[in-house]
Amino acid sequence: MGKYGLVLHGGAGAILRHEMTPDLDAAFRQKLSEAVNAGHTIIEQGGAALDAVTASIIILEDSPLFNAGKGAVLNAAGVCELDASIMNGRTLEAGAVAGLHHIKNPIHLARDVMEKSAHIMMAGSGAEKFAEGLGYDLMPESYFQTDFRRAQLLRAKELENVGAGATTSTGRVTFSTIDDNALIAQFKWGTVGCVALDQAGNLAAGTSTGGMTNKKFGRIGDSPIIGAGTYADNATCAVSATGWGEFFIRASVARDIAARMEYQGKGVVEAAAAALAKVREMGGSGGVIAIDAQGQISMEFNSPGMYRACQLAGQTARVALYGDETRR
Amino acid sequence: MGKYGLVLHGGAGAILRHEMTPDLDAAFRQKLSEAVNAGHTIIEQGGAALDAVTASIIILEDSPLFNAGKGAVLNAAGVCELDASIMNGRTLEAGAVAGLHHIKNPIHLARDVMEKSAHIMMAGSGAEKFAEGLGYDLMPESYFQTDFRRAQLLRAKELENVGAGATTSTGRVTFSTIDDNALIAQFKWGTVGCVALDQAGNLAAGTSTGGMTNKKFGRIGDSPIIGAGTYADNATCAVSATGWGEFFIRASVARDIAARMEYQGKGVVEAAAAALAKVREMGGSGGVIAIDAQGQISMEFNSPGMYRACQLAGQTARVALYGDETRR
Repeated sequence: MGKYGLVLHGGAGAILRHEMTPDLDAAFRQKLSEAVNAGHTIIEQGGAALDAVTASIIILEDSPLFNAGKGAVLNAAGVCELDASIMNGRTLEAGAVAGLHHIKNPIHLARDVMEKSAHIMMAGSGAEKFAEGLGYDLMPESYFQTDFRRAQLLRAKELENVGAGATTSTGRVTFSTIDDNALIAQFKWGTVGCVALDQAGNLAAGTSTGGMTNKKFGRIGDSPIIGAGTYADNATCAVSATGWGEFFIRASVARDIAARMEYQGKGVVEAAAAALAKVREMGGSGGVIAIDAQGQISMEFNSPGMYRACQLAGQTARVALYGDETRR
Repeated sequence: MGKYGLVLHGGAGAILRHEMTPDLDAAFRQKLSEAVNAGHTIIEQGGAALDAVTASIIILEDSPLFNAGKGAVLNAAGVCELDASIMNGRTLEAGAVAGLHHIKNPIHLARDVMEKSAHIMMAGSGAEKFAEGLGYDLMPESYFQTDFRRAQLLRAKELENVGAGATTSTGRVTFSTIDDNALIAQFKWGTVGCVALDQAGNLAAGTSTGGMTNKKFGRIGDSPIIGAGTYADNATCAVSATGWGEFFIRASVARDIAARMEYQGKGVVEAAAAALAKVREMGGSGGVIAIDAQGQISMEFNSPGMYRACQLAGQTARVALYGDETRR
């Protein structure tokens, strides 16, 4: 049997067991399982890594559980602002979109930028005009918004106004409590991503996100940045990152993992660990998923948890949420 | 004497001797000389690489000769859309802006994003709101526009409408003539950038551009992408790129040069040449400037020419435009 496989993440962050209800735990696992299964089935049947990555991410974008597509976090203006990118490891072609308000599946538009334009990256209303020209339906902003994200935005604004240690309508706020740390982590994280190796030996990677809760000033994080949040090269590996995006941009994390493999001869596990160690040194945290052309995978993170799932040729799918579960 | 120095570019492209008038040749050399002198003087007097890079780029942004700030190319809507990025090699801090319409010096705002926000990248009207909050004057769009760029846009639209080989009001168009190639190259290129090493051993890099003539859909090129158009790390080098941005993003050119130095032990000249060779293999062209912590520099390009200038400690400034002049 050929080597092939698929890995996905639904965001890094402070997802601790005691914060999770059994129902929510089950819902996350079910959706991750559905997404990994959809992508893996495509590859198992001889389909392309790029199609598998797209299919898996669309399932996560359509679920309100994750910070991408429907259910993405709200920006300071109270609306979703979506970014995504995708890369083809066979051709080194890539596509990215940033600052979308009306596109149901940003990963699909990123792929169309890659395949149907001469560009790599399009932003804002320009990107949506490109989508309209391709026949995309523009969704109302309300489609993306959920009550949970509205509550989260209110809380973020409250914290912003009072600062750490001050008193708010919901009581004393201190960033040193686990609950607030977890909440703050959730403000920043929850990006989804997928990497895959198909039976033809081709790699692909994709990432999709709503960015940070309460974000202002058209902030763009690492998810739509080729080389930071996403990279794929058949010669090395496919990578999707999640975490504190600013650090992932400064360290060019996705490209750095590929570079350590290409120039130092490291394996994907060691390369991913080294790149994340650099992020931690710089003061950042988060995680990555990666797969190489031999089907070796990494699900590395230095946050307390990372929603993740993987399925390799001839194996059953594995789904994990917390730091004390499998990373391989 | 300590090792220090500064290198800048005013864009790669098909700048051939026979297309240049003596006056224009002199004007380019004079402005490049002024810019390199401004930055070098700061470093010579003990100032920071970051201040030198900012000062040099502002001179090029303010000049209508270059595709950055005033005199930037026009997008499909007939207005300038400006991108820039900057990186501090000492701290690996970075700042970037994209899709600006009203900021006189985008490199200055990129630096403020780096130094006065928690983010790396801001886009569009959000970035301009951030600028307003800092007291920036918003310039009218007319400030940036020049007759030359208006003519170039008309020509680009004409070429777009008719395609290669068709007949236009200005005669038969074929992309195989040098003139048209040069014109097309000018549509894409002309980005400015600067890298510097100061007497304290700190590196910095910055890049500023108007992107591509007639660009649509909020296209973002490599210039505001940390790792693609700009990178700086005291451990390796500072890089600014210019050229066909899509290829520079796909190859993560700026980060790749640093990675080849860090992981393969290459010198800056060899690393820059190898990274550009990869761009050429992929079908792209352009150039880079780079300086390492020992004051070694590279001014490498695979386009017919690259506006460039450099000055190293104790040496006179060198300014060059064409492919047959110095690259070191």
